[in-house]
Amino acid sequence: MEKKLSQPTHGSLVLLPTLYKVWSDANITNNEHKAFQSFFNKVDWLSKEDREYLTNKLDPESPPSREELEMWWQTIKSAIAEEKSYPHLSSIGVDILKKNAPIFAETFPVEKAEIELGKLENQLGIIGKSAALTFKSIHSNISTSYETQTAFATEKLTYLLDGKRKPLIDEVKSFISKKEFDYVDPGNLREYREQVLLWCKMLADKGYGSIGFPKEYGGADDMEGYFTVMETLSYRDLSTVIKFGVQFGLWGMSVFSLGTKKHHEKYLKDIGSLQLPGCFAMTETNHGSNVRGIETTATYNHKEKTFTIHTPHINARKEYIGNAALHGKMATVFAKLIIDGKDYGVSTFIVPLRNEEGKTLPGISITDCGRKMGLNGVDNGLISFDSITIPKENMLDRFSSVDEKGNFQSPIASDNKRFFTMLGTLVGGRIGIPRSALAASKSGLTIAIRYADKRRQFGPDGTAEVPILNYRMHQRRMLPLLAKTYACHFAMEYVTDRFLNRKEEEMQEIEALAAGLKSYVTWHNTETLQECREACGGKGFLSENRIDALKNDSDVYTTFEGDNTVLLQLVAKSRLSAYKEQFENMNLFTIIDYVVAKAKTSLTEKNLIITRNKGEAHLLDSEFHMNAFYYRENSILNSAANRLKRLMSEGMDPFDAVNVAQHHLYTLSLAFIERVVLEKFIEKIEQTSDPELKQVLKQLCDLYALHQIEKHNGWYLEQGYMEGGKSKAIRKMVNQLCWDIRKDAVPLVNAFNIPDACLAAPIAI
Amino acid sequence: MEKKLSQPTHGSLVLLPTLYKVWSDANITNNEHKAFQSFFNKVDWLSKEDREYLTNKLDPESPPSREELEMWWQTIKSAIAEEKSYPHLSSIGVDILKKNAPIFAETFPVEKAEIELGKLENQLGIIGKSAALTFKSIHSNISTSYETQTAFATEKLTYLLDGKRKPLIDEVKSFISKKEFDYVDPGNLREYREQVLLWCKMLADKGYGSIGFPKEYGGADDMEGYFTVMETLSYRDLSTVIKFGVQFGLWGMSVFSLGTKKHHEKYLKDIGSLQLPGCFAMTETNHGSNVRGIETTATYNHKEKTFTIHTPHINARKEYIGNAALHGKMATVFAKLIIDGKDYGVSTFIVPLRNEEGKTLPGISITDCGRKMGLNGVDNGLISFDSITIPKENMLDRFSSVDEKGNFQSPIASDNKRFFTMLGTLVGGRIGIPRSALAASKSGLTIAIRYADKRRQFGPDGTAEVPILNYRMHQRRMLPLLAKTYACHFAMEYVTDRFLNRKEEEMQEIEALAAGLKSYVTWHNTETLQECREACGGKGFLSENRIDALKNDSDVYTTFEGDNTVLLQLVAKSRLSAYKEQFENMNLFTIIDYVVAKAKTSLTEKNLIITRNKGEAHLLDSEFHMNAFYYRENSILNSAANRLKRLMSEGMDPFDAVNVAQHHLYTLSLAFIERVVLEKFIEKIEQTSDPELKQVLKQLCDLYALHQIEKHNGWYLEQGYMEGGKSKAIRKMVNQLCWDIRKDAVPLVNAFNIPDACLAAPIAI
Repeated sequence: MEKKLSQPTHGSLVLLPTLYKVWSDANITNNEHKAFQSFFNKVDWLSKEDREYLTNKLDPESPPSREELEMWWQTIKSAIAEEKSYPHLSSIGVDILKKNAPIFAETFPVEKAEIELGKLENQLGIIGKSAALTFKSIHSNISTSYETQTAFATEKLTYLLDGKRKPLIDEVKSFISKKEFDYVDPGNLREYREQVLLWCKMLADKGYGSIGFPKEYGGADDMEGYFTVMETLSYRDLSTVIKFGVQFGLWGMSVFSLGTKKHHEKYLKDIGSLQLPGCFAMTETNHGSNVRGIETTATYNHKEKTFTIHTPHINARKEYIGNAALHGKMATVFAKLIIDGKDYGVSTFIVPLRNEEGKTLPGISITDCGRKMGLNGVDNGLISFDSITIPKENMLDRFSSVDEKGNFQSPIASDNKRFFTMLGTLVGGRIGIPRSALAASKSGLTIAIRYADKRRQFGPDGTAEVPILNYRMHQRRMLPLLAKTYACHFAMEYVTDRFLNRKEEEMQEIEALAAGLKSYVTWHNTETLQECREACGGKGFLSENRIDALKNDSDVYTTFEGDNTVLLQLVAKSRLSAYKEQFENMNLFTIIDYVVAKAKTSLTEKNLIITRNKGEAHLLDSEFHMNAFYYRENSILNSAANRLKRLMSEGMDPFDAVNVAQHHLYTLSLAFIERVVLEKFIEKIEQTSDPELKQVLKQLCDLYALHQIEKHNGWYLEQGYMEGGKSKAIRKMVNQLCWDIRKDAVPLVNAFNIPDACLAAPIAI
Repeated sequence: MEKKLSQPTHGSLVLLPTLYKVWSDANITNNEHKAFQSFFNKVDWLSKEDREYLTNKLDPESPPSREELEMWWQTIKSAIAEEKSYPHLSSIGVDILKKNAPIFAETFPVEKAEIELGKLENQLGIIGKSAALTFKSIHSNISTSYETQTAFATEKLTYLLDGKRKPLIDEVKSFISKKEFDYVDPGNLREYREQVLLWCKMLADKGYGSIGFPKEYGGADDMEGYFTVMETLSYRDLSTVIKFGVQFGLWGMSVFSLGTKKHHEKYLKDIGSLQLPGCFAMTETNHGSNVRGIETTATYNHKEKTFTIHTPHINARKEYIGNAALHGKMATVFAKLIIDGKDYGVSTFIVPLRNEEGKTLPGISITDCGRKMGLNGVDNGLISFDSITIPKENMLDRFSSVDEKGNFQSPIASDNKRFFTMLGTLVGGRIGIPRSALAASKSGLTIAIRYADKRRQFGPDGTAEVPILNYRMHQRRMLPLLAKTYACHFAMEYVTDRFLNRKEEEMQEIEALAAGLKSYVTWHNTETLQECREACGGKGFLSENRIDALKNDSDVYTTFEGDNTVLLQLVAKSRLSAYKEQFENMNLFTIIDYVVAKAKTSLTEKNLIITRNKGEAHLLDSEFHMNAFYYRENSILNSAANRLKRLMSEGMDPFDAVNVAQHHLYTLSLAFIERVVLEKFIEKIEQTSDPELKQVLKQLCDLYALHQIEKHNGWYLEQGYMEGGKSKAIRKMVNQLCWDIRKDAVPLVNAFNIPDACLAAPIAI
């Protein structure tokens, strides 16, 4: 089979790079073969021998051998000038000719051949200038060389993020970085749960559990501190965070907020020290989001001055109750209060579950919820009460009580208002959860972005491989999420502040804000961690790199403290009734005209200059962003209000009408929240004086704003708020911002300042 | 504190429902108070006593007591006629007046009062007709009563889905429904992995492992059967599916496809029976997607007729290798072939890992990958080779070999072509994985949709709660995913068929199709299971309901067999070069002009009638859908090709140019795949003769098509392919289709015919 390789004829040397190109990747196609044939028929500078040689070498049935291809390659390489730029492959061919047959070349019509061959290349679809690079050893490119540069002082940004709580944050970070907090394998439920209880005890001993309780009960009267601790703990094991939240936030705060002095005195200190582990038993199997529908009863017995707590059927058991399966000794139980056969709605009661030795008390049945998608360090359980008797003083009687004569009493006349006031005291959970989610997102992004900065894959021939963060798609996957994480950080700062300094009349607005942000931030977290998992490829799937636990532990945050979709419906109603209705009320009979009127007047006039403006200065103008977000919010508010009024006026059942418009209402809530998030981000930047921080935050804010507008471009175009050209310009600007921010990406995640012990991902350290 | 309740004055009775309404939910607002005051100043039919009573009852500082509200409620209830429709609250007031003060009512200007009070209600934002329903015990509504109806024979649809492989599918389903296949807790890695090995042995004993191998080696020569088995197994434990795929698909098929007769005779039978568990050792730590960059070497020693397999450094270890940590005895190892110091590119070799007793052989180091996000029944490991010597015949020598004289030989001249031909033989994995993913999606949807049909939450007062699947948002979350699952099913059927009946010249097209669909379907699966998790709330978080395992086990499918984002880049290049280039080649120097030309000519002329047509017949016309999908695909192909040509002609490094256009290329690939998916769905419907099935599939297909157009509405509007009004009409139609399909949703998931033993979710059975 082996035979001597035939040398190219002199005239065919100019075609050698083209020949090599069409063969090197695959077989020659029919179209290519035809293109060569018609080329041969046209040109007059190929000899009979040239034509024979070339025809032979272009036969699709008889491809050149590996050795022959290699000989061509060597011939081309030895003639090429590394520094020279070749417009066509034939320009290389001319150099080959000159080198290998210098005398022949003197009489050869090189210019003509180069031009005519250039046309052939075009016909073959070869982009000469690019293809010429195939034969060069080195050629510079941006993708390989672009890299991390620190344009600002990372620690200053950390300081800006942490704010005045930095000392507490640093203290908690340092505490949970201790060896004792090292992650454990979640495989063995029993061991994992005991470990988590131990961690919670360590935190309680340090005083973190009671930090939000009044000083007289061992606390520090520092609710903001409580949120800060909960958020900072979220850089470590999330089961611990949730167990911590159940014990001190739900169990403790329910006793504090729904009970009165006698309860505070009796229980708070032991709750704060974790001497008295307890549960928050609200949700039932049949009633999760619809708390009003719960069926557990608390029947008052005036003679004995007791209540009988009872679970009427299996689907009225308390479900998913944290601390229930193993450790809880008592619970705040939500039950319908029955006096003399009359139902007075939902009230709360302290019910003992286990004795000192941890044995379940008679009449109490507890079933373990078993393994879960995540949070396996938390012992969730189902609780059933078989006519349990508790003394009257166990009623948490701040908002409803039974008087000396056995009559129902409440400082709040309206049943609706009482119910939502009671739930409203627990709104803190809707702040704690998204702040914890945000910490998880920050961990995920730190891991994925640091990895993407180091990990190299593919690259132009002859150069180093490219850090995957230099790929535009990878930037698109990671950096808008990073920008949104920063945006959400400032929004959570804002809502925490509003909550801590609340006045009675602002409560409904704050509840709507908290409910909306809880949904927005927890969904953002789920999306972020999913993207981080995929962006780290196989490494992201290994538990050792922690994205597994981050994602699975925090996944249920979108369900906790109110299902996100349900919460957004409530937020929408709050917007529509302008805080008139108790916004958690599911029906909606009242839509105030001035909501519509207000929305309408604030709609900016559409104006051709703005709808078409594609200038960079305009696209990066925060005022443009803010106007666009307001326009969207108000338009949707207006259209949703009008639609509901119309449907109901036409006689549609209001429940059906709200259902028909459900997707509309969902969009309304998100538009509202996005506007708040952008507004707070812009305000934060205005307050920042350091020019370097200001600049990097402005870029992130621009990316956040434009990425949202890009996501909603269908809506904006529908409305005529912008034209197609502007929409394209925005897409391009998002790409550009991703590219620009890429070099700051690592410093931006480093500014989250998450201890390596907490990250604990080998790919990130 | 207790005092007698004052009775409403006669004239104030007409205002009682309005009074009740403004107080029942919350406190009275300032605006409301003002509205009442100006109303009092206007009307002449209220007496001094009426005004006194009402002013007293409207004092924001002194809300009515609970008892008073209840008295009003009783007064209203006892006067209301359940069957009557009341346009205003005052219309109820008139009935109250007539009932409680009939003589007074005779002289009272009822009509005037009703009209004037109606205006007040409007001012207060109360929608009278709706608000009146507050006082009725029963009022019909659609949300509560809408329910599942079976409009077609479920078993016929199952038959249509399963097609001619139904007997095999039923056989496998019945086999894996046995008690022996009951799910185990994944907590204990060691136990779980041994269980999975046992399950694989049971499947091998049944002949499923070797089904795709030639008959002479114990198989059934039935590759289609192999895909069918792998897909059907995916209704049970997914670790088993992947271990099965590693053993029979990767290890077995690599020996079969890359080796020659001597290897087949020596190994295939034992592989098929699982006597010889093995690995597929391609991926290295530093090189996942970029297989060409692997660094493991196989150095030929001509004197000894051996190869030395060596791992040069820690990051060149084979990583994530299934079967490696515990059970694999041999491996197909991808390594760079070195002869006489010269690198001949990637070849494959059979390398023994463990002896008969399972002890690791000298020179082999294996590290366990440990716990993963999912698939914990698979023993993935890292393998390192310390100058291992293997005999020459262990080279899998179908595509490259070393001849008697020690020279490299290959039937394929081009290095590129050889490399991609070798990888191309493994394209089966890119069909098996998405088919497995689709089975997981079907399981998730069956669980979530059955649950949503039964689970009730909230409802209008006085009626039953509403099945959550009747909520429009819930429909929007679930039903487009169901439609897309059906769409993907038929597309996978198509690509499987193309693959099984492939001709050499179609290989590149089929590879692009498989790579594209692999990405599309596995992402769809991740999204579907995430949505199912959330849609089932807390129940979805409990492992017992299986969404946990489905999601976490299949999550890595988006990374397996080529990272989705990387694969889509390859698909785009294949489209751009019209199958000329080996599409896995990362650079792109050739863009055939006729790609652009072809794309351009097939772009439908935009036409005002179509861009504005909002008619239902048009929106539900498959031709409109198909045109829109083709238009999108061709436009993006055209613009991407032109953009790349421009960038490269301007002298940009081609690698950079491809990088700049990366997001564009990604969009191109998805547009291509979506067009294929829709086309195959429509073809399937055309081939379906049963009118009931045809109708339900047409609805699903419409939902799939319109939901994609809705998702891309920004793009269509940018292009002027449709106008804003049409875009809105499409959104409305998507809502309507969701509503219509909802009643078929349960039968549609039942048609997947997944055994209860496999679903095993308490909420779904």
